[in-house]
Amino acid sequence: MTERIDHTLRGRWTTEQAQLPPHALTWLHARIGTGAGAVTPARPPAVPDSALGDAARTALDDVVGPGHVRVDPGSRLGRAGGLSYLDLLRQRGDGDLAVPDAVVLPGTPEEVTEVLKTCVEHDVAVVPFGGGTSVVGGVTALRGDKAAVIALDLARLDRLVSVDPVSRLAVLQAGLTAPEADRLLAAHGFTLGHVPQSYERATVGGFAATRSAGQASSGYGRFEDLVEGVRLSTPVGEWRLGAAPASAAGPDLKQLVVGSEGAFGVITEVGVRLRPRPAVERYEGFFVDGWARGADVVRDLAQRRVLADVTRLSDVDESEVSLALAGGWKTTALKAYLRARGIGRPCLLVLGWHGRDRQEVRRRRRETLRGVEAVRLGTPLGEAWRHGRFNGPRQRDALLEAGVCVETLETAAHWSRLSELRTAVRGALVDALGDGCLVMCHISHAYETGASLYFTVLAARDADDPVRQWQVAKAAAGEAIAGLGTITHHHAVGTDHAPYLEGEVGALGVDVLASVKRALDPTGVLNPGKLIPGRTLAGGSPPAGLASRDDR
Amino acid sequence: MTERIDHTLRGRWTTEQAQLPPHALTWLHARIGTGAGAVTPARPPAVPDSALGDAARTALDDVVGPGHVRVDPGSRLGRAGGLSYLDLLRQRGDGDLAVPDAVVLPGTPEEVTEVLKTCVEHDVAVVPFGGGTSVVGGVTALRGDKAAVIALDLARLDRLVSVDPVSRLAVLQAGLTAPEADRLLAAHGFTLGHVPQSYERATVGGFAATRSAGQASSGYGRFEDLVEGVRLSTPVGEWRLGAAPASAAGPDLKQLVVGSEGAFGVITEVGVRLRPRPAVERYEGFFVDGWARGADVVRDLAQRRVLADVTRLSDVDESEVSLALAGGWKTTALKAYLRARGIGRPCLLVLGWHGRDRQEVRRRRRETLRGVEAVRLGTPLGEAWRHGRFNGPRQRDALLEAGVCVETLETAAHWSRLSELRTAVRGALVDALGDGCLVMCHISHAYETGASLYFTVLAARDADDPVRQWQVAKAAAGEAIAGLGTITHHHAVGTDHAPYLEGEVGALGVDVLASVKRALDPTGVLNPGKLIPGRTLAGGSPPAGLASRDDR
Repeated sequence: MTERIDHTLRGRWTTEQAQLPPHALTWLHARIGTGAGAVTPARPPAVPDSALGDAARTALDDVVGPGHVRVDPGSRLGRAGGLSYLDLLRQRGDGDLAVPDAVVLPGTPEEVTEVLKTCVEHDVAVVPFGGGTSVVGGVTALRGDKAAVIALDLARLDRLVSVDPVSRLAVLQAGLTAPEADRLLAAHGFTLGHVPQSYERATVGGFAATRSAGQASSGYGRFEDLVEGVRLSTPVGEWRLGAAPASAAGPDLKQLVVGSEGAFGVITEVGVRLRPRPAVERYEGFFVDGWARGADVVRDLAQRRVLADVTRLSDVDESEVSLALAGGWKTTALKAYLRARGIGRPCLLVLGWHGRDRQEVRRRRRETLRGVEAVRLGTPLGEAWRHGRFNGPRQRDALLEAGVCVETLETAAHWSRLSELRTAVRGALVDALGDGCLVMCHISHAYETGASLYFTVLAARDADDPVRQWQVAKAAAGEAIAGLGTITHHHAVGTDHAPYLEGEVGALGVDVLASVKRALDPTGVLNPGKLIPGRTLAGGSPPAGLASRDDR
Repeated sequence: MTERIDHTLRGRWTTEQAQLPPHALTWLHARIGTGAGAVTPARPPAVPDSALGDAARTALDDVVGPGHVRVDPGSRLGRAGGLSYLDLLRQRGDGDLAVPDAVVLPGTPEEVTEVLKTCVEHDVAVVPFGGGTSVVGGVTALRGDKAAVIALDLARLDRLVSVDPVSRLAVLQAGLTAPEADRLLAAHGFTLGHVPQSYERATVGGFAATRSAGQASSGYGRFEDLVEGVRLSTPVGEWRLGAAPASAAGPDLKQLVVGSEGAFGVITEVGVRLRPRPAVERYEGFFVDGWARGADVVRDLAQRRVLADVTRLSDVDESEVSLALAGGWKTTALKAYLRARGIGRPCLLVLGWHGRDRQEVRRRRRETLRGVEAVRLGTPLGEAWRHGRFNGPRQRDALLEAGVCVETLETAAHWSRLSELRTAVRGALVDALGDGCLVMCHISHAYETGASLYFTVLAARDADDPVRQWQVAKAAAGEAIAGLGTITHHHAVGTDHAPYLEGEVGALGVDVLASVKRALDPTGVLNPGKLIPGRTLAGGSPPAGLASRDDR
């Protein structure tokens, strides 16, 4: 049976947005060895009958009101997983797609708490669902040991609750998408400044639940830096945090809720730090010679604390692809020009500054560029990046259609290990996917002590078992990361990184997370199978944390 | 029996340092109404026999080696509490002084873990002891329901474990005092930049355990911002955290250890972010007219993100005292000058910039002062502040000797509530201590969304029940803070703030802390009575967190 997928509440990338330029597809087919013009159409996934019992459904109806509990296949399919490559494959008919038994749409934080209590009573698992943009299985509709599973869609929690212009604070409801939040804040002269690639769909609650980072986080901070307060619904009641801009009142429990991925509760409102909307934005492109030199430039900016708001360094391969896709004689001429300027291995550096006026942007730009050795290509290259900044997720359906295996993964490490980490992950991916694959990498977030690495992988899709093909590659990358960096810099844990969590936070770390979950979610209805790994080890040795790294 | 208190491992403020200038004492006696020249000498406290059993002592000896388990009264008295006014009163013979049954000095992180296991076996409570500078009862030797209590003195954990100059990271052992840490790091060209008033005695482990903030935290960040990794000994084993400069691998568990005040484990090593040692420091004094205008200036600096490294605004009363203690005709002349410049209610603003050279300091200073309306008094006033920056704790013994009740307390709030909070706390303290008392306040830490308030209180000490006198005043201040700000910005919770913790983090917050403690310290040997309040309420309503503050 073919189902019409209902994405009406969230919207999905339109077909128009998903187009790829023909010359790019041609170039890509030649590069990774897929047959040009190959088309692998999707097979619509099967939708099982809803397992939600009548009593549970009636009770949920009573809480959220009629029309806000949906069991039609279209609504359920529209919340069946997120946007990882594996999710997309499953939605196209490859592998088993987990479909929620119902979609429940509460209208207030109080209703969210009531829904959770109802689900405890009726043995129903709850998957909080915001923009549905998780790329790590964070919204996969797993039911764990429960009788049924619902997607708790927060779309109706879409209010700007309050604005405090003096303190530059706002309280936003969790279901607001980033563009909606920015539109509401713009009326007060403010912005979140949080622009991940998922910006168009992702929600405020999702940002907080996953410790999101955005393209301008070098300037505005990671989302956890923006969070000044949270309101959380749990099966044992409501929890609010956020008394002051800073506190020494014990451990920072806000930072326990931020990143809890729906396993401890459902974030319903977030108090966020605001910045004035910038009147001026300027993006510029530069080239530096080779990865090592480029990373040194970014490190210097971070350690001098003069990073641009957007700071993004592509490695040679990613820069090469950017130039190839731009296409034609201009690329050839640019390469010749760069060679003449001493740049044989061009690495693209995009810098972007925001400010209240031209003077401020000029001043900040001068501070950033003081002493930086790079060839300046001007604003057109920077604007080209800005223009295409959300294209990645938009184009994935088209790439899948064209027989391509396309996925991203990311990590972060301290500066002294960053190049080793890049080489290791790259090598692991090429080993797993074959020489034909294309592995590109960039730094998109820099800190005084280290930086993130973001990899984009393109390969010819294995026709027989595309799910397994990527699982093998992802596992190889995970092995390469272990001991050098974090398992995830901003994609979160979900199902896909859960097996690696103990390696990063230790057996005691997993014990602590499990103890917090028992306190807040005693029957385990919340997002089963996410974040906290099923334990295979009893005890285990401590992980390789920074403290006591004896490498003086 | 008079005991000689053994402070040899830590040092205590010397008598020479503790002197107060005679004119200051005269002025103070006149101002708060104590009898000039009154002397109230200390009565040496009684030291009970050690309750540590022979078997426990032998087992501890086996772990740390002979000579590192001390039961002599002098050693025990030297670790009987911290440096709060109530601690000092008790150490002078007013009220009951809790004296540990032994002082245990492990030499390695592994020995710390073994000591904890031994204490579990022998039913002994453990109070981690660094510099002993807690002002909230954090190191009070409470035994809870255990048979005995030891002070676990970390003084022998004094190694710089590693330095990574590329990533600007170091791993420091917990027992290093701030000056020792800075001396070791200086050899590599780095500094922590962490300078609380307790700098001379406080330790790296204590900074992390209490979420410390320092006088230069506006520039260098609070200590929790510096922590990149921790190594924790717990009764159930070791726990290490800190894989990367930033991570989305679930909740930030580092921020659960930072601020855990010895209740979850003993921090043995800390991975910290470093900054280059500044070659140039410049401190300047300014005056602004009145608190409200002064607070607006600081808020503007924070929100423009051009704060000086040291940014400190005194209210009218604190500024008045500073001028009075400077003394003589110069004060009168200065006041006349300020009046002529339109400043009738002078508030002192001290700003300090650090940099690698004069150019950098000049550049940063220009950015800070752009558009600021204040009367500049130049570097002598700034240098005077720097010269006296550690005097507060040094002078307290002398003030106690002179019959003065002297204490500080602090909070923080969002900008829109800051003046209301200052007025409320000030009023509560004056109501409790009488009109004669002196209540001074300053902002020492500013953020984009709010700031800290630091109060210093001086009053004539109640001769009959000085402990009760301060407890009443402190409780009144706590009531005034509730709902407006945090119970503590950087002094931590200890015993003194524990009753207020539930008001800030909610009943669920206390449940979560208790569940984490059960996971890491199942028998409750670690620092009983600190941080986690004894529960008086079952459940309770959610606290007034920022999220959902409906004050649009």
